[in-house]
Amino acid sequence: MRVTRSHHNPRIQPADVIPSSPAMQVIGVFNPGVACHNDETVFLVRVAERPICKEGECLVPVFDAVSREIRIRRFLLADSKIDVSDARVVKTPEGNYLTSISHLRVARLQPDGSFRVDQQPALMPQTEYEAYGIEDPRITLIGDVYYVTYSAISDRGIVAALATTRDFREFERAGIIFHPDNKDVALFPSLSGGKYYALHRPSSSLYGRPEIWIAESEDLLCWGNHKHVMGVRPGSWDSGRIGASAVPFLTDYGWLEIYHGADEHNRYCLGAVLLDTEEPWKVLARSPSPILTPEMPYETDGFFGKVVFSCGALVIGTDVQIFYGASDTSIASVEIPLSGILEQLGVTIREVV
Amino acid sequence: MRVTRSHHNPRIQPADVIPSSPAMQVIGVFNPGVACHNDETVFLVRVAERPICKEGECLVPVFDAVSREIRIRRFLLADSKIDVSDARVVKTPEGNYLTSISHLRVARLQPDGSFRVDQQPALMPQTEYEAYGIEDPRITLIGDVYYVTYSAISDRGIVAALATTRDFREFERAGIIFHPDNKDVALFPSLSGGKYYALHRPSSSLYGRPEIWIAESEDLLCWGNHKHVMGVRPGSWDSGRIGASAVPFLTDYGWLEIYHGADEHNRYCLGAVLLDTEEPWKVLARSPSPILTPEMPYETDGFFGKVVFSCGALVIGTDVQIFYGASDTSIASVEIPLSGILEQLGVTIREVV
Repeated sequence: MRVTRSHHNPRIQPADVIPSSPAMQVIGVFNPGVACHNDETVFLVRVAERPICKEGECLVPVFDAVSREIRIRRFLLADSKIDVSDARVVKTPEGNYLTSISHLRVARLQPDGSFRVDQQPALMPQTEYEAYGIEDPRITLIGDVYYVTYSAISDRGIVAALATTRDFREFERAGIIFHPDNKDVALFPSLSGGKYYALHRPSSSLYGRPEIWIAESEDLLCWGNHKHVMGVRPGSWDSGRIGASAVPFLTDYGWLEIYHGADEHNRYCLGAVLLDTEEPWKVLARSPSPILTPEMPYETDGFFGKVVFSCGALVIGTDVQIFYGASDTSIASVEIPLSGILEQLGVTIREVV
Repeated sequence: MRVTRSHHNPRIQPADVIPSSPAMQVIGVFNPGVACHNDETVFLVRVAERPICKEGECLVPVFDAVSREIRIRRFLLADSKIDVSDARVVKTPEGNYLTSISHLRVARLQPDGSFRVDQQPALMPQTEYEAYGIEDPRITLIGDVYYVTYSAISDRGIVAALATTRDFREFERAGIIFHPDNKDVALFPSLSGGKYYALHRPSSSLYGRPEIWIAESEDLLCWGNHKHVMGVRPGSWDSGRIGASAVPFLTDYGWLEIYHGADEHNRYCLGAVLLDTEEPWKVLARSPSPILTPEMPYETDGFFGKVVFSCGALVIGTDVQIFYGASDTSIASVEIPLSGILEQLGVTIREVV
């Protein structure tokens, strides 16, 4: 399978992004959702920021919904009760925090292949459910409205929230669509059998694993009839956890979903799954091996290394152009022929959409 | 506050229930949902069964949705990799199991205060999501349909499912309404501000605690706009976990919800919370101390001791009659004056509904 990374990679890096305030530093710009708007390719990128720390301390940013400010909590790394073994999380006796706080920002692809990143955030943490940040947007165009699903993190848990926009300038929040814990929500762009569908990724504390489920809706706000779609594969590249990545798109053979999977060592790869057109909870075929693995330096090293993680893809001619976060640090893209993905899925090609 | 336990307590015990098959023994009948149907008081009771074990072994019942049989897994208690420190759960390297499997059965209150328990189950595990059993029904009458919410447990996680009945003879499953992990779902019996509401209890793995949330719906099948309602109280009787218990009922002062709370030692008590009539996510008042604590021998000793846990209550005249599971073993009831509960909540009584 031909896998062609962009020669512009990494296409956006932290240094390309202006912090949302002078007290913060941008440590990651990654996991972009993508859409076509008018004649532009528009992105919502996740920008992760943290306060500038002195040696030996860890400053944790938490949005306070009452004062509408980001408050800083300070922990000393020498404190034996503090666990920072995962670069993303600070575990403390009083609860867990994130070491950075993320917001969403608009970026636009320029004719020369570069990106113009807005100087101001598009969506900042705003509610009590977003106290630890908002992350990993997926954008689905339905009618003339762009539906943005994103993860909201707080001491209430991890929830999936919805916002809408028509122009990528004004956004409207539409509330929490999936309760704790849930993330990796991708809305299908059209009805199947008269219903809207969403892939989602609940977590279970005592039984079950982080796997891909589906729910149905008539209004995109209220969701039900949850079904398990597919699970992790012990011994495989996606043995630890899986979730939807890009918004699914329709092919002649069914819905194609680019999903992510991680193994027990938190190495994140991308794979593909083909879902039935009318009954999208039915898996028709699934990648035996990844379609993209972390190999390049920007994919193996960074804030959280060995990660390729997508929130969006576009079909450009006969290629699938996948945008992805690399090592929770930067944004990259890769082109893979749709026929190659379908062949890997065992589909006998009639005609590629 | 006057708290009058029934002199019939415990009102139903395991010996009163015929096993669903000769290979099984009933170890618990508890956590009943309650409703009035025609002129009868009808219950759905949770019946927990397990295979008859020999000494030194633990036989775990798992429903297999393909063969439609309950399969038995055998673990040796001498195996150091097996953890049975919680009587309800077997933790093994391959995953966690329940030591018993529950189904739901109809019981009817008789004129002499005794109960007639159906000889056959009303709802048995039937789907892959019910492999470890179905538990803790709450019954809400809306129009002429009784909506039954219950927990379904499997290696997919703990989900909240919905079934409906009009006569307590035929039941129809309506799918999973809340994804993993979720339990303790209580549907409000009427619209508030044009929406249906449900209290629910998600769990969060890394952030958050098991606490009470609310969701809204227009059709009782698809749910959204999730909001956090209330949390645990450190140092209090409900410091560890809380969840809705009985179906909320309307008073002149708001929705009255009998909820359960447990402390860090898994001692389960009942309390009350008053929710705003039109905006039921708003807490008006909450029990400073429990309205019922495990005190009687049948409440302190049993399969899982120190537990009073309700799934249903009736307003009888000026009293609230609360039915509850005692020690995950038997069913009991208690009468508490509504005025007493409201006074404990700090409500200045105008007139009791």
